[in-house]
Amino acid sequence: MGNSLGKKFVITSFGESHGKCVGIVVDGCPAGLAITEKDIQGELDKRRPGNSIASTKRAEGDIVEIQSGVFNDYTTGAPICMMIWNKDIDTVSYKQTRELPRPGHADFTAFVKYGGFNDWGGGGRFSGRNTAGFVMAGAIAHKLLGLIGVKVLAHTVEIGGIQADSYEMISEDIINSNPLRCTDLQDAKKMLAAIEKARREGDSLGGIIEGIGFNLPAGLGEPIFDTMEGDLAKALFAIPAVKGVEFGVGFGAAKMKGSENNDAFRVKRGKIVTETNNSGGILGGISNGMPLVIRIAVKPTPSISMKQKTVNIHTMKNEELGILGRHDVCIVPRAVPVVTAMMAVTLCDFALQAGIIPEVIK
Amino acid sequence: MGNSLGKKFVITSFGESHGKCVGIVVDGCPAGLAITEKDIQGELDKRRPGNSIASTKRAEGDIVEIQSGVFNDYTTGAPICMMIWNKDIDTVSYKQTRELPRPGHADFTAFVKYGGFNDWGGGGRFSGRNTAGFVMAGAIAHKLLGLIGVKVLAHTVEIGGIQADSYEMISEDIINSNPLRCTDLQDAKKMLAAIEKARREGDSLGGIIEGIGFNLPAGLGEPIFDTMEGDLAKALFAIPAVKGVEFGVGFGAAKMKGSENNDAFRVKRGKIVTETNNSGGILGGISNGMPLVIRIAVKPTPSISMKQKTVNIHTMKNEELGILGRHDVCIVPRAVPVVTAMMAVTLCDFALQAGIIPEVIK
Amino acid sequence: MGNSLGKKFVITSFGESHGKCVGIVVDGCPAGLAITEKDIQGELDKRRPGNSIASTKRAEGDIVEIQSGVFNDYTTGAPICMMIWNKDIDTVSYKQTRELPRPGHADFTAFVKYGGFNDWGGGGRFSGRNTAGFVMAGAIAHKLLGLIGVKVLAHTVEIGGIQADSYEMISEDIINSNPLRCTDLQDAKKMLAAIEKARREGDSLGGIIEGIGFNLPAGLGEPIFDTMEGDLAKALFAIPAVKGVEFGVGFGAAKMKGSENNDAFRVKRGKIVTETNNSGGILGGISNGMPLVIRIAVKPTPSISMKQKTVNIHTMKNEELGILGRHDVCIVPRAVPVVTAMMAVTLCDFALQAGIIPEVIK
Amino acid sequence: MGNSLGKKFVITSFGESHGKCVGIVVDGCPAGLAITEKDIQGELDKRRPGNSIASTKRAEGDIVEIQSGVFNDYTTGAPICMMIWNKDIDTVSYKQTRELPRPGHADFTAFVKYGGFNDWGGGGRFSGRNTAGFVMAGAIAHKLLGLIGVKVLAHTVEIGGIQADSYEMISEDIINSNPLRCTDLQDAKKMLAAIEKARREGDSLGGIIEGIGFNLPAGLGEPIFDTMEGDLAKALFAIPAVKGVEFGVGFGAAKMKGSENNDAFRVKRGKIVTETNNSGGILGGISNGMPLVIRIAVKPTPSISMKQKTVNIHTMKNEELGILGRHDVCIVPRAVPVVTAMMAVTLCDFALQAGIIPEVIK
Repeated sequence: MGNSLGKKFVITSFGESHGKCVGIVVDGCPAGLAITEKDIQGELDKRRPGNSIASTKRAEGDIVEIQSGVFNDYTTGAPICMMIWNKDIDTVSYKQTRELPRPGHADFTAFVKYGGFNDWGGGGRFSGRNTAGFVMAGAIAHKLLGLIGVKVLAHTVEIGGIQADSYEMISEDIINSNPLRCTDLQDAKKMLAAIEKARREGDSLGGIIEGIGFNLPAGLGEPIFDTMEGDLAKALFAIPAVKGVEFGVGFGAAKMKGSENNDAFRVKRGKIVTETNNSGGILGGISNGMPLVIRIAVKPTPSISMKQKTVNIHTMKNEELGILGRHDVCIVPRAVPVVTAMMAVTLCDFALQAGIIPEVIK
Repeated sequence: MGNSLGKKFVITSFGESHGKCVGIVVDGCPAGLAITEKDIQGELDKRRPGNSIASTKRAEGDIVEIQSGVFNDYTTGAPICMMIWNKDIDTVSYKQTRELPRPGHADFTAFVKYGGFNDWGGGGRFSGRNTAGFVMAGAIAHKLLGLIGVKVLAHTVEIGGIQADSYEMISEDIINSNPLRCTDLQDAKKMLAAIEKARREGDSLGGIIEGIGFNLPAGLGEPIFDTMEGDLAKALFAIPAVKGVEFGVGFGAAKMKGSENNDAFRVKRGKIVTETNNSGGILGGISNGMPLVIRIAVKPTPSISMKQKTVNIHTMKNEELGILGRHDVCIVPRAVPVVTAMMAVTLCDFALQAGIIPEVIK
Repeated sequence: MGNSLGKKFVITSFGESHGKCVGIVVDGCPAGLAITEKDIQGELDKRRPGNSIASTKRAEGDIVEIQSGVFNDYTTGAPICMMIWNKDIDTVSYKQTRELPRPGHADFTAFVKYGGFNDWGGGGRFSGRNTAGFVMAGAIAHKLLGLIGVKVLAHTVEIGGIQADSYEMISEDIINSNPLRCTDLQDAKKMLAAIEKARREGDSLGGIIEGIGFNLPAGLGEPIFDTMEGDLAKALFAIPAVKGVEFGVGFGAAKMKGSENNDAFRVKRGKIVTETNNSGGILGGISNGMPLVIRIAVKPTPSISMKQKTVNIHTMKNEELGILGRHDVCIVPRAVPVVTAMMAVTLCDFALQAGIIPEVIK
Repeated sequence: MGNSLGKKFVITSFGESHGKCVGIVVDGCPAGLAITEKDIQGELDKRRPGNSIASTKRAEGDIVEIQSGVFNDYTTGAPICMMIWNKDIDTVSYKQTRELPRPGHADFTAFVKYGGFNDWGGGGRFSGRNTAGFVMAGAIAHKLLGLIGVKVLAHTVEIGGIQADSYEMISEDIINSNPLRCTDLQDAKKMLAAIEKARREGDSLGGIIEGIGFNLPAGLGEPIFDTMEGDLAKALFAIPAVKGVEFGVGFGAAKMKGSENNDAFRVKRGKIVTETNNSGGILGGISNGMPLVIRIAVKPTPSISMKQKTVNIHTMKNEELGILGRHDVCIVPRAVPVVTAMMAVTLCDFALQAGIIPEVIK
């Protein structure tokens, strides 16, 4: 269970890393949205490994197929099933994970939960590859949000302790121009060097991604449980390796005084805005019309070639493990389009719930 | 919408700060659990303002009433409605919030979302007072978790930038013995001084709470969307003022290498454990049997008596506002039992979904 | 579990027949709807026993209390909790049901499911009294539907085999004028005589209720699972004693040919209508703009004073049972306002999902 | 929306009659169930048109493909996506339905709801062909129910007014032996003659199907909204052409007295049973251990070759329509395996919710 997300824009994920395919069903997309496989492919290509020096050598020339819900290049209101077929599978190198769970991976917990029946090839159901489905759904959500002028972006703000200095102007072009998805090209170079160093050492790096929602209308969110923060966080924690989510100044708020943290209201060009945006665009779980700001902590890729301590789950003896296979040294850049996808999916759900995006696009 | 949470242990919240009452309906509690109003009251008293020097002067001598679902001191399997009646209401001091939204509060977003029809007294639906309902539900969840040996605790680890030094041994007695819910009594004194200072300045403070789940069985969580992290985060973001949630080392993982962050598996007394617990007890969204560790960022109370900038939502003119009424200078200590409540509610839901807690207690 | 219903207009039921109260929480009601306890009471009075000769002698002078979600006589968008307190409780006569389950009642199945912990007083959670909560929620739904011109009515069309002859003109006044909720006053007299006869014999009668939705817009319903038929049927089967639900000609369709059953489309005053309405206003699970027509089979009240065969669930011996207490000889007339309530609740949910009723009423 | 069904055994349907495929995702199937495409195909073949003289000439040699969730012939606990690819598509004959909605079909309501963007080929999303997905999910549910000894059967009890005389002994072999899925071979011949006659007349026939659940444990069902009757009815109304659902004596109960309708409890071989089964195995929305008995009214196929009255939805003029294409004269026999599928899916969900089927099959 647990493979569906959303109330009105509902996504259902399926597939395994080394199974036949990875896919997603989107239910609740309004009828009348112009969409083609090309639109989906464009988003999907952003998370392609070949696009980033930090990433696995697996050649995923994934071509999306829309299997249902689109007719003559428009959505019909029916569920949209999208898939990519798995190729270039190298399961042999995963065979040892049947007995020796990889530290930091889900091998052990999946074994316990599913009684050993889980598909272990390439991490199976727990592989980052499943986020390809998230991105397909996100491509549709991005288009729907575009109809109401909402734009969702994300970028790398930290890798291996190296922070992107300043990002006054968030430029989608700059983000897409460099493999690190960073807004500061100088810092991107430093990050790249750190990644190269980690690769040589057989190690891996983590980092922080910032997601931003521009032009979001005030009034989205369904307190007190289906809050903007709550539903966004839940969606983002579905991305493997995410271990923290904060909004606005986030954990920094803990060190601030009320007089510093409170965002003063002001009238600007006939609209109520806040002078600062410490809240990250959310008050009481509801969007306030300021940019939505989220920061996501991504742990270092658990797959490292250095020797690690583990146990044999059958013999219950302590063992050592060196992970073979092809892996991303740092997953952060490839997670950037996944972050925007999950943000878009969640915001789209809220906008549909609030009736801001209509049931039929005309 | 959005006032229900959970799949199998479903809580539905209702009530307003200055309305008649605050309450909760718990659906899905197994039949046969021994429970009395005393059990609920015990938890509820922990979040009482009078219990903490940091808190509002409102005298909430709240006495819980169980209205349904309990028969002869045992749960029946039917929904359990619990309520406290509001008394000592001072709505007058909130009248200005109808026109002048308080910075950092939900006054403005609620006005936009509900077209001005929202109950503004004391923050209405957005008041921290609604968390009393969470605590009532949590009291039942704590008891259910107790049946399978699970214990959930939380404590204050930071207030106003002052960190609790060390907390090798988490002692429930020490936490409950001091009004700051801190495990280090020396640091608690420093925090108290900081709070007193902020009070004198008409300001407020935030902080960080750590929640821990002990003795959790491995295998809880429903990836890939209903993960341990995702559902816990969603539940915790329902607590007003929470702006960040992280698991294990959380944002700290962003700065670590894979070789540092990965928790090595070892066999210890015939059981598989990890040497470190950087993951906070969760791998792949599923509990791994190690202690669950969560850290929650709480922003400083937005209600401060210092003058603040705001706007008049009717005249659309810039204004100044000084907040009257009774407020917590620092909400952190009172949020501690709310954190354990929301953790318990979520873990209980997972345990029921997994069939680890049975449908009838015998 | 299972005590909440709906997607966007969500009702959560609680309470027991002989517990403290019976209540309902309505979540998802738009803000800005004018509503008072009087509005709710008006609907509630329609199911009062004293209103019908067919009914129990229990004097339920139930006065509804709105506990939350309404502020200055308008809904706020927050959950609306409504309750009636139980009085005039005569639990003594139910004591035997702890050991001797009453045929046709839920005593046995509740005992099995809840391990004997269920509240047995007056049928507890399974009593028809819980439908008072449905009617309270229905009162709000009726008002919301009124905003878009939709009117839901129901009436008794059969009791004890006696059918109401013709009902060309469905008049709400006539329905409310007679205790049998029948549109034909002559047939109502015959039904009454049959009920009196059954009472004298210590027996009970069943019947059929027809529910009609007038002026429903075309396009409501969410195929292929959340169909108009499916969701209405599910809501109606929550009413105790309902054993069948059919739409339009219903079971009669099984005997018709396609050429007879198909409703021909015609243009009438610039609108597309059907010449006949065998479909009951639903095609493909979606409303077609014609009147919605439902028929509901209600079984005879299982509580009869005649001796019946049962077993002692503790000794596992065959026994005899004579049911004491106060009971409706025929529940049909009192179920009429409950049928309209559940229809209104379901239609309201569809209308809110489709965005036809807005999130804020202005 | 509305394309997912279930709480713990969740099915998500996708696909269109003349699109690329028809499919289903099953989420919540326990890990460790032995399953192959052969198991699914066996069920799927039962609804194949070629199997019944009453059916369309479309040659659907549908071969199911399992795309995910099964590994080495065992379920993994991950979502199971299953599909058949559409072939032998003849969309030309449906082109007129773009302008001239077919009476009794969803063409008109789909046009209204989806603004004309719906896929109209072969009825698109509303085609009976989508029930192939239901049957695939049902195949898994049947296997799971088999683990706890539950068997679900269905058979034709009426077609065109001709009733199957007696069915003392429900034999799966006899049901499967004749194309009408009838337990009485003599009556099956009469039904066949009626169908042949209707075909010659360019007309169609409806009928009644009875579904039975054997060996169901007492205690399934989640009152008061997620009742056995409510959830089963909702699932069955998802089958196109179903217009009525009744349990046990159903509408017949309306004519009975309480003394006739109540099923007396008796002890038989150490087990509590009822002497009669008028309730159809359900009391208070919960299974009582007796056979579950459901009757489903199926309307005559709306597609008939006789001329029918309709309107042109663009010109808003009255028109006439003769339906081309290949159609079932009577859908009843092909609906039989769909009825058992939806019953199995629903019962499986209840059994998983109650923990009677475990999370891992061993």
